[in-house]
Amino acid sequence: MVDDTVRTVAVVLFDGFELLDVFGPLELFGRLPQDFAVTLVGPKPGAVRSFQGAEVVATTSYADAAVPEIVMVPGGLGTRALVADQPFLHWLGRWASGAEIVTSVCTGSALLAAAGLLDGYRATSNKRAFAWASTHGDSVEWVASARWVHDRDRWTSSGVAAGMDMTAALMAHLIGPERAQRVADEIELELHTDPDWDPFAASAQ
Amino acid sequence: MVDDTVRTVAVVLFDGFELLDVFGPLELFGRLPQDFAVTLVGPKPGAVRSFQGAEVVATTSYADAAVPEIVMVPGGLGTRALVADQPFLHWLGRWASGAEIVTSVCTGSALLAAAGLLDGYRATSNKRAFAWASTHGDSVEWVASARWVHDRDRWTSSGVAAGMDMTAALMAHLIGPERAQRVADEIELELHTDPDWDPFAASAQ
Repeated sequence: MVDDTVRTVAVVLFDGFELLDVFGPLELFGRLPQDFAVTLVGPKPGAVRSFQGAEVVATTSYADAAVPEIVMVPGGLGTRALVADQPFLHWLGRWASGAEIVTSVCTGSALLAAAGLLDGYRATSNKRAFAWASTHGDSVEWVASARWVHDRDRWTSSGVAAGMDMTAALMAHLIGPERAQRVADEIELELHTDPDWDPFAASAQ
Repeated sequence: MVDDTVRTVAVVLFDGFELLDVFGPLELFGRLPQDFAVTLVGPKPGAVRSFQGAEVVATTSYADAAVPEIVMVPGGLGTRALVADQPFLHWLGRWASGAEIVTSVCTGSALLAAAGLLDGYRATSNKRAFAWASTHGDSVEWVASARWVHDRDRWTSSGVAAGMDMTAALMAHLIGPERAQRVADEIELELHTDPDWDPFAASAQ
């Protein structure tokens, strides 16, 4: 699967998204513009407010967003309202179904599950919010201890910082481990490359 | 120095800033709004484009920004032009001199040095850009191997991801190590708490 195609990555912003869920992965993808073309989609074009307060500019609305090759859905406290927002979930389920790969960071997996995108898949989520996140979806096999879970065309990570490890693993899968490691070295990021490494699972019990 | 004061933190945005240099530290500060009140300052209010392309909203212009208790200057390719931008350096040097603590992530230390804010201090920078960064400043003691350097009221980190470790150390210094560790655990971030840990110094040689 390693090749030189430029892949489109669309990150789904919403009010109350968690900053590092978005910008950890974007830091990594953004260093390889010849491999990954990232767009930020939001409820409408313009500023979207994060949980932490900082506002980020969405360039495309949900309604107008082309189906990308890779979907990335962050978590954050904003997910608590969105898991009950039927128009959002209906859009997400239809739109993301057309992507080659659907990913989430942290409680973004609750949104994927609520949109029906994880039925029949193994998946994980933030360990502090695991009891809540894992109530979503009809037939999701929730994994309580994992830095991230890769099951066919779905990649879901544990909380916040775990999104960077998952993204590096996804990049390694798509363009080779050497290039993914090179990007991590450039940004002085010590990667965890073992998806089963999860000290935070125990600490959350 | 551990106390319960709310401290103001101002992050200096500029065209071509590095995403994770800003949002790693903001993820941490933003989880303790009772301790840290963060503002984003830019050339003018409105969107500022990162090196990776994503745009972030500055709420205050450089000219109008109140002097905060903590200044944070990120790095990124945009620093290459700014180290020669005398009006910017003049503003930064005057404005940041009034802060209690001045910090930088990655090549942000080149901007601090060029503005005269590191003269007589020990400091570090991104290890891949160290030869360039360390040409700035008149009497800076540049440290070639360090995750971050804390010298009195100046904190400077190594490249990109190192900014999160430095920020957690600064938070530990100001509000106690237990609370800093709790925030890191919440976001499933494995902290490096030893400022001398620096495998990237060797790999950059």
